[in-house]
Amino acid sequence: MKSEDTVAKPVMLIVGAGDYIGSAIAKRFAVGGYTVCVGRRNEEKLLPLVDDVRNSGDVIHPFRLDARDETQVKQLFSNIEKNIGPLDLVVCNVGGNVKFPIRETTSRVFRKVWEMACFSGFLCARQAAEYMVPRKYGSIFFTGATASLRGGNGFAAFASAKFATRALAQSMARELGPQGIHVAHLIIDGGVDTQWVRDRIVKNLGEEALADLHRDQLVKPDAIAETYWQLHHQHPSCWTQELDVRPFMEPW
Amino acid sequence: MKSEDTVAKPVMLIVGAGDYIGSAIAKRFAVGGYTVCVGRRNEEKLLPLVDDVRNSGDVIHPFRLDARDETQVKQLFSNIEKNIGPLDLVVCNVGGNVKFPIRETTSRVFRKVWEMACFSGFLCARQAAEYMVPRKYGSIFFTGATASLRGGNGFAAFASAKFATRALAQSMARELGPQGIHVAHLIIDGGVDTQWVRDRIVKNLGEEALADLHRDQLVKPDAIAETYWQLHHQHPSCWTQELDVRPFMEPW
Amino acid sequence: MKSEDTVAKPVMLIVGAGDYIGSAIAKRFAVGGYTVCVGRRNEEKLLPLVDDVRNSGDVIHPFRLDARDETQVKQLFSNIEKNIGPLDLVVCNVGGNVKFPIRETTSRVFRKVWEMACFSGFLCARQAAEYMVPRKYGSIFFTGATASLRGGNGFAAFASAKFATRALAQSMARELGPQGIHVAHLIIDGGVDTQWVRDRIVKNLGEEALADLHRDQLVKPDAIAETYWQLHHQHPSCWTQELDVRPFMEPW
Amino acid sequence: MKSEDTVAKPVMLIVGAGDYIGSAIAKRFAVGGYTVCVGRRNEEKLLPLVDDVRNSGDVIHPFRLDARDETQVKQLFSNIEKNIGPLDLVVCNVGGNVKFPIRETTSRVFRKVWEMACFSGFLCARQAAEYMVPRKYGSIFFTGATASLRGGNGFAAFASAKFATRALAQSMARELGPQGIHVAHLIIDGGVDTQWVRDRIVKNLGEEALADLHRDQLVKPDAIAETYWQLHHQHPSCWTQELDVRPFMEPW
Repeated sequence: MKSEDTVAKPVMLIVGAGDYIGSAIAKRFAVGGYTVCVGRRNEEKLLPLVDDVRNSGDVIHPFRLDARDETQVKQLFSNIEKNIGPLDLVVCNVGGNVKFPIRETTSRVFRKVWEMACFSGFLCARQAAEYMVPRKYGSIFFTGATASLRGGNGFAAFASAKFATRALAQSMARELGPQGIHVAHLIIDGGVDTQWVRDRIVKNLGEEALADLHRDQLVKPDAIAETYWQLHHQHPSCWTQELDVRPFMEPW
Repeated sequence: MKSEDTVAKPVMLIVGAGDYIGSAIAKRFAVGGYTVCVGRRNEEKLLPLVDDVRNSGDVIHPFRLDARDETQVKQLFSNIEKNIGPLDLVVCNVGGNVKFPIRETTSRVFRKVWEMACFSGFLCARQAAEYMVPRKYGSIFFTGATASLRGGNGFAAFASAKFATRALAQSMARELGPQGIHVAHLIIDGGVDTQWVRDRIVKNLGEEALADLHRDQLVKPDAIAETYWQLHHQHPSCWTQELDVRPFMEPW
Repeated sequence: MKSEDTVAKPVMLIVGAGDYIGSAIAKRFAVGGYTVCVGRRNEEKLLPLVDDVRNSGDVIHPFRLDARDETQVKQLFSNIEKNIGPLDLVVCNVGGNVKFPIRETTSRVFRKVWEMACFSGFLCARQAAEYMVPRKYGSIFFTGATASLRGGNGFAAFASAKFATRALAQSMARELGPQGIHVAHLIIDGGVDTQWVRDRIVKNLGEEALADLHRDQLVKPDAIAETYWQLHHQHPSCWTQELDVRPFMEPW
Repeated sequence: MKSEDTVAKPVMLIVGAGDYIGSAIAKRFAVGGYTVCVGRRNEEKLLPLVDDVRNSGDVIHPFRLDARDETQVKQLFSNIEKNIGPLDLVVCNVGGNVKFPIRETTSRVFRKVWEMACFSGFLCARQAAEYMVPRKYGSIFFTGATASLRGGNGFAAFASAKFATRALAQSMARELGPQGIHVAHLIIDGGVDTQWVRDRIVKNLGEEALADLHRDQLVKPDAIAETYWQLHHQHPSCWTQELDVRPFMEPW
């Protein structure tokens, strides 16, 4: 896989490269000159992103990945490091939002949400550390949510997993910062501008609500991607460990 | 098991009834007139506590319980509710403190710590809610630690699990408070006065350090047990969701 | 002022002894055997409380006090320590809740709210430390509010003053805890059951809303007073620095 | 003062434009094409900065300002808005760090630190809102510190003032965000690379410690200035309200 056009570029990986935030981050780093690797459980869903990036003449490598599976995670990192290049940045972006009253939260759901939102992040971040620490260089970013800071009614499973991930990020930052690794946690507090969110607005509030929606009332994936870009390029004398982002009209 | 002397007493359960905090809580509620149920993986280790309580003429029921096992948890709650009486209070007190650099944290350890410190709490608290919500009465308490609020260097696994439990408690409090259930999270910030801690002080700092140890420099299990007792008896117009406790000399 | 019946009793002082929380704390400690001192800007408003306590055969000393005035604060402490007895507990309970949009918040309001809710607490707590530290004994408690943790829309002045007080409590706890002084911050999150709150409910929502009000939906002053009592009697191996209290139905 | 070369440029103001952070922010925005206004109590100390910016061909207006004085603040804003142009960004950067045991903290110090670190920010931010809200555009940034989140031993005065400022920022963000104004709070957690800090290192730890100092162990003012620049240019669908920055080796 190694080729003329990838060898000199920095490499980054997004785990849980969904259609919106993950894809926007991928494009931002591709445009910025990175070789972008993206992992997703359903590899086929990566095709539009891959086409998009390649049509712009940029470099992207899609991978099928269930990030809850330690063997798969290890193989992917080994594969990238050996065949594509040393990872400069790993973004842990696997979702898992669910809402259930506590008595309707099955143990299967509780465990699965944790495996998706936290355990997968642990596996990938630890593997990133494995390669980055000896080089004393690299960034590991986690995508957080409102539920990372607040255990709301009905969010026992999701908030529990997101708090867990926040602690993981904080603990890793304290350990790995002095070793030259930038570990950050980005809390996205607000609805992201996705088709699913728009459909839900129409369903719950009617077509009118969608029309009334202010231009910037939902998080724009491209705007959030810019924040990931900037964080990765912060000077080591001035690293951010945690920040929030929300649309200007968001109540909180 | 139902008998004259238990039928009229309120019933409480401590899951993870260790030799110190758990046992002290058990004794406090036994003295206070409760029928005390205690669950622990190794049932035999409960014997000294059971003898102690019974020698005082109080009522205690020991149970073998692996609180990470949903079936065992359900059976225990069903058994207590049917044969002993309706649970007024359930204390989730399973430990799980470990310290490892992130690269030496195995996936097995990361998962096990979460299962002990968080998943077992979820299973027990949910089961408690199952019985308490229809009665609009009862308390569910979680024991937290310094790591519930701070992801320290080397505590990725433990802090992650403790943050997760804090979110669970907060989310359940928001959902179940208005249904009459008091959900609280008690953060014990400081070393508990146990033989293990004293041995470690001698080993690390010498006999002298132990002699110099101020009388109240370590958390006294009886004192913390009093706080659990008071919390459970707070008036519903004035419930505490979270508090910290630490020895007066503890740096933080 | 020194007399047979006060000399042997422990002494406590409530600064900002309003009709509800402050008065309830006063009564709780009077019943508990304390000589109670209460300070308020308008001394006459203390009369009902004073009558109440004295009718129960307990001991109370009312004082006119503007707690923002350093000279008055110093004189009061000196007076109490000399003529009544050594202070075991000082409660800083001065209010100051206001709500204004930022552009309508005058500098006079912003400063006054800070002087009431924070500066008065500083003056009293520092004076308490002055007497307590040499004795290595005593408690200093601050009453907090929802705004101690959250800067809500319209609460720039009040939240700013309450955050400031929380920092003061936390900093003093870290400094004075190891010197034997228990500094705690109690966050009352929810409406207190006062005539003013009930009048406002009627005015805003109608008589019906008052009738529908659940018995325990508003904080009962007596219940919160019990929490102050318990905190002051915590064992030094197990001190709480911060806790919240709220009515069981309170959304948060 | 209005002239050809300022009329078309966006305008920004730094209140408390010290030699390091404040000056670095000024230069960053000057280079970025802004007309920069800087206010400081001792106007003469602004001369090196002013020379620097003007030598680069950029535009800067220095002002003598005691930001604790409401009249001065109002006049300055009025002057800038009338004669220079509409303010796009106001940075509240007045310092005030002191460290005293509580019993040695005079009421004069406690009040002065609050006036510097909080009240001046209130006056400037409110005045900024006065002009920005009708335009539905603009940013108001506050510089925070470690003490904004933690009331450390000896920092009763400083932490109290910094917590107060954080609440002010949070409350204003909640009120003004939906009106199009970006209010953010930047927490600088770590020593800034200033001559004073370097001198203190030499004095406390010797010349050797300075030599051993890692290149990026102290916050570089230019690096932090870049973060202010980026924050001001965030997309309104994706505003950060709070972030921390610290040197990679900083323990926290």
